Amino acid sequence: MAVYTDVAAEDLAEFLKAYDIGELLSYKGIAEGVENSNFLLHTSKGAYILTLYEKRVAADDLPFFLSLMAHLAARGVSCPQPARNRRGEVYSTLAGRPAAIINFLEGMWPRRPNAVHCAGVGEALARMHLAGRDFPLVRQNPLSVKGWRPLFDAAAPRADDVQPGLRDFIARELGYLEASWPSDLPVGVIHADLFPDNVFFLGDKVSGLIDFPFSCNDILAYDVAICLNAWCFEPDHSFNVTKARALLNGYGRERQLSAAEQQALPLLARGAALRFLLTRLVDFLNVPPGALVKPKDPLEYVRKLRFHQSVQSIGDYGVAHSGLVA
Amino acid sequence: MAVYTDVAAEDLAEFLKAYDIGELLSYKGIAEGVENSNFLLHTSKGAYILTLYEKRVAADDLPFFLSLMAHLAARGVSCPQPARNRRGEVYSTLAGRPAAIINFLEGMWPRRPNAVHCAGVGEALARMHLAGRDFPLVRQNPLSVKGWRPLFDAAAPRADDVQPGLRDFIARELGYLEASWPSDLPVGVIHADLFPDNVFFLGDKVSGLIDFPFSCNDILAYDVAICLNAWCFEPDHSFNVTKARALLNGYGRERQLSAAEQQALPLLARGAALRFLLTRLVDFLNVPPGALVKPKDPLEYVRKLRFHQSVQSIGDYGVAHSGLVA
Repeated sequence: MAVYTDVAAEDLAEFLKAYDIGELLSYKGIAEGVENSNFLLHTSKGAYILTLYEKRVAADDLPFFLSLMAHLAARGVSCPQPARNRRGEVYSTLAGRPAAIINFLEGMWPRRPNAVHCAGVGEALARMHLAGRDFPLVRQNPLSVKGWRPLFDAAAPRADDVQPGLRDFIARELGYLEASWPSDLPVGVIHADLFPDNVFFLGDKVSGLIDFPFSCNDILAYDVAICLNAWCFEPDHSFNVTKARALLNGYGRERQLSAAEQQALPLLARGAALRFLLTRLVDFLNVPPGALVKPKDPLEYVRKLRFHQSVQSIGDYGVAHSGLVA
Repeated sequence: MAVYTDVAAEDLAEFLKAYDIGELLSYKGIAEGVENSNFLLHTSKGAYILTLYEKRVAADDLPFFLSLMAHLAARGVSCPQPARNRRGEVYSTLAGRPAAIINFLEGMWPRRPNAVHCAGVGEALARMHLAGRDFPLVRQNPLSVKGWRPLFDAAAPRADDVQPGLRDFIARELGYLEASWPSDLPVGVIHADLFPDNVFFLGDKVSGLIDFPFSCNDILAYDVAICLNAWCFEPDHSFNVTKARALLNGYGRERQLSAAEQQALPLLARGAALRFLLTRLVDFLNVPPGALVKPKDPLEYVRKLRFHQSVQSIGDYGVAHSGLVA
């Protein structure tokens, strides 16, 4: 939630000369993105987002996710489209950092998602999965099952400071998931971070999916499992089965989950909960003292994980197997 | 530089029903304003800024500066205009805070102001002073000469920690200014904070003045003195007489400074430098440990103050007395 790098109006105007997006009228640093600097631009041709990538690692993945957005947008998925400069590049350098411009999507993310929103996000996710089928680039998911043990190793020594017994709880779950993680489910391009703040709505309709830096190739149903975690729990941590049903049925209307995917969903949901538990835990343990940005609560995902551990089958998510047939 | 209060899309849409500014399409927290939360709104009718006032004291002054903006805009000064809701109010309550909506002004503030910018700001300031002549509300300036001693008292015990001798330096200057501050110069509505980030340009032309929470009734030429401090020093702290000349001549083209104002200008510039030295010093000494927002350097204003102490007459600001005649 911060602008890390300011850009001089004079430098930005110069940078924009390489683009065909009109005359710069204004730009504002916006409080979005934890790791990058984002600016909302108004030009004589419309509104755009300028992002300066502050971390080297993100820059290495720029070709993947900027190309993906262009690919998806060309196939009718409403997501930001990167602007190409006159050299045909989707990113170049500004203020010493990799910088990209995407078109601005109107819409608001729902602070209190309801079942209608969940249905919309399910449909949009499935359409994204289908549109990504012929995307040629590949990026392995660094935060899938193989990426979890290094996170655990980093957090384990101090995990019990956060909650007594947390270290053993995670160790057992991690061992179980590593042993039973499926390898034969349909894979493809996933968003991998489709939380409510990454889905815009106008009224009840999805107006766009944003924020693709976690996108990668992985199990498609794992993306659904992430959404179950991200959209279907209430602020009091209870699981809202109505929302889950809406989300899964929405997905099923566009892309039917196979029997194997349906059967694996509770396991994938455990994995998704563990993934966010681990990254939040590492962040939580590494907050500089006195930092103004409060880390997200890792224990929220302990509760979610315990819920998924108790799930017997996809029926506990509110749908019969047949319920997913479009 | 932060959004302190998030607003739910659902709550904002409800709030906007009281306004006639169109359907909400998007809103983004923007990294502007140190003490308030600001959002850039796109609606079906255009772009607006929503401000949530985080401090009680600012809220008490809302009627003054929101009415002032409306008054100035009606007289052709390009500044944001507050939107009135259907009850005729220029502010009401959102997320438990006083909230106002103003129209969005296109333009960029110059990170590296040049003499052309300085001429523009001089002209714009004078036009604002003229347009404010018949503004009926009154707000005394809490940060004019009478407000400085309380700031000094707050900062004095630790002033020498910032720079040895600073306490005595300020004490002497404060005593001198209190004894010699003029009481017979033309007064009126002043902006009182017209730094480069509060003046928008499109190309070389001023497109708007923003950010009026410091506006008040005070000596008009004191506003000019603030601008000399804010616009005419280089990053290496040297005084740029070309910029000062441009600023003063720009002002003079719209409103001629009287002989008494011209004579008082070096003294007023010392006062303006002391005012920002004191508020920055208090802020600097009260930064919470580990805060991410770096306080502005108070010593910058020690250097500026020393420069103005060395000034003999307005001639040292680059203009002969006659130079101000339009």
